[in-house]
Amino acid sequence: MNILFSFLPKEEQQANLRNDFPKAVFNFQKGLDKEALKTADIFVTYGEDLHATDIETAEELKWIMVASAGMEKMPLKEIANRQIVVTNVRGIHKTPMAESILAHILSIKKSLPMVAENQRKGEWSKRVPSSELLGSKALILGPGAIGGEVGRILQAFGVQTIGCNRSGQAAPYMDEMTSFENLTKALPFADFVISILPSTELTKGLLTYEHFQSMKPTTLFMNFGRGDVVKEDVLLRAIREECIAFVVLDVFEKEPLYEGHPFWEMSNVIVSPHISSHSSQYVVRALEIFSRNLTEWMRGSNHLENLIDMERGY
Amino acid sequence: MNILFSFLPKEEQQANLRNDFPKAVFNFQKGLDKEALKTADIFVTYGEDLHATDIETAEELKWIMVASAGMEKMPLKEIANRQIVVTNVRGIHKTPMAESILAHILSIKKSLPMVAENQRKGEWSKRVPSSELLGSKALILGPGAIGGEVGRILQAFGVQTIGCNRSGQAAPYMDEMTSFENLTKALPFADFVISILPSTELTKGLLTYEHFQSMKPTTLFMNFGRGDVVKEDVLLRAIREECIAFVVLDVFEKEPLYEGHPFWEMSNVIVSPHISSHSSQYVVRALEIFSRNLTEWMRGSNHLENLIDMERGY
Repeated sequence: MNILFSFLPKEEQQANLRNDFPKAVFNFQKGLDKEALKTADIFVTYGEDLHATDIETAEELKWIMVASAGMEKMPLKEIANRQIVVTNVRGIHKTPMAESILAHILSIKKSLPMVAENQRKGEWSKRVPSSELLGSKALILGPGAIGGEVGRILQAFGVQTIGCNRSGQAAPYMDEMTSFENLTKALPFADFVISILPSTELTKGLLTYEHFQSMKPTTLFMNFGRGDVVKEDVLLRAIREECIAFVVLDVFEKEPLYEGHPFWEMSNVIVSPHISSHSSQYVVRALEIFSRNLTEWMRGSNHLENLIDMERGY
Repeated sequence: MNILFSFLPKEEQQANLRNDFPKAVFNFQKGLDKEALKTADIFVTYGEDLHATDIETAEELKWIMVASAGMEKMPLKEIANRQIVVTNVRGIHKTPMAESILAHILSIKKSLPMVAENQRKGEWSKRVPSSELLGSKALILGPGAIGGEVGRILQAFGVQTIGCNRSGQAAPYMDEMTSFENLTKALPFADFVISILPSTELTKGLLTYEHFQSMKPTTLFMNFGRGDVVKEDVLLRAIREECIAFVVLDVFEKEPLYEGHPFWEMSNVIVSPHISSHSSQYVVRALEIFSRNLTEWMRGSNHLENLIDMERGY
């Protein structure tokens, strides 16, 4: 069984895999080795290097393990046609992302940037606005693994959570639920609106100007899912017209965010360069999931963790 | 029954009190009215305006309600000698303080100041150090109402909590306990050392240079209790010798922190000007506690919330 990587785990991690799976032939490469892919049974990738033409020639390929959460750069149609199994590391991001989201919420509510600015000026000033999370409401667009973790921690702070997904079906750690269709009715109650939605045909451009008009003028809007859930000119207009008070963006329509983009200079916008999922534990956890799945796979089982539904795209 | 305030609640809050307690005579003043204190049965204060001589002439005084947590500016000996009952608003600070403490921890772990600095420079840089709370350990000096709330939320983040008090007796939301005496043994395991200790004879200068030497070089030390738990020259030495990595101070030996103090300019010290307990809900909650206690008091009961043990001083 040939297993091709297009990234390099640490030497020790490579050795552990070879040791744990003596019957597999591991080929660790930095970047996609198109020749090796032709004979690979399993391909492990960050999900940004695979093209439709690669799938055609990868005649042995049966399973692609994507060591990230986003699937939008994958040639999904071609993969689905060939009935190749795809798994990802959904859930691996939940801890760093939930911690990052909470970090930004708390920092803004407690005015930490102003505290830092006063320190730079050597100014002892107690006139620092501070408000509480306790008793507020958060609307979470995409209450999956990451959204649920955000909800769980927000609930510990005494924040009421409203989940929003396609169907409005119940989700863990959400006090209430609503659907995409009924979103406008829920928005006027939310102090925080947090999107962790993936990019799919259903979510692209989901948030319109009217949605932002429904939000409270004190609302903090956060996008930690994918940039295309709202057009940037819509978001810019909503900020300039003060439909909302504050925005934290970890994702953008085009990344990196181009030089001179208005977001860079707006005092109520935080530009986080798509780093909220970063963690020193990332590869460790990805390989743990891969190892568990590989064990199942080699036993001929198809009970894999984080199996992607190729029709939904997540 | 004469009730004297030395601060002014909002008009509406004053009216509510008069309405709820028609048998009491309320006298709301901004600042201590020494004449009125002579005939007051109950005195409501932030606890910074009372002197020993005032107690002598306040012949009717039976109960002092301190609308803050710190008792150290009160003439405790004279109050105890006269057997005047003292209550405070312990617990009122737990929400804003726990939220503030978490805000600083998360902001530092996720390098939010660096993200802000990169944004100022218009620089899209993913090279931002980020580490997780999950799996780390926090040592909480003073696991009372506030410390317990910090512990409860840290546990929700998957942080293990070690409480430290005089006796080592169990406290809520602490996974383990240790005593002041055994502190040095627990310090090498703590990623966060958080003091919320009040200022008492036992806690003054409790933390010595040797304690800081026992901490990990990666430790984040936070003082949100009282400044005198560690001498500032000891703390400065510990920072300069890199015994610890980062310090957040909300309290200081002398407040305001004087101009030109080295803390202002240190890149790994955050100077928070004693604001972590601030909240828009402060007076509302203080008056709720006072009203509950006044109801008891007028019924002749002595089951008061937040009764101060005058011997311990908290």
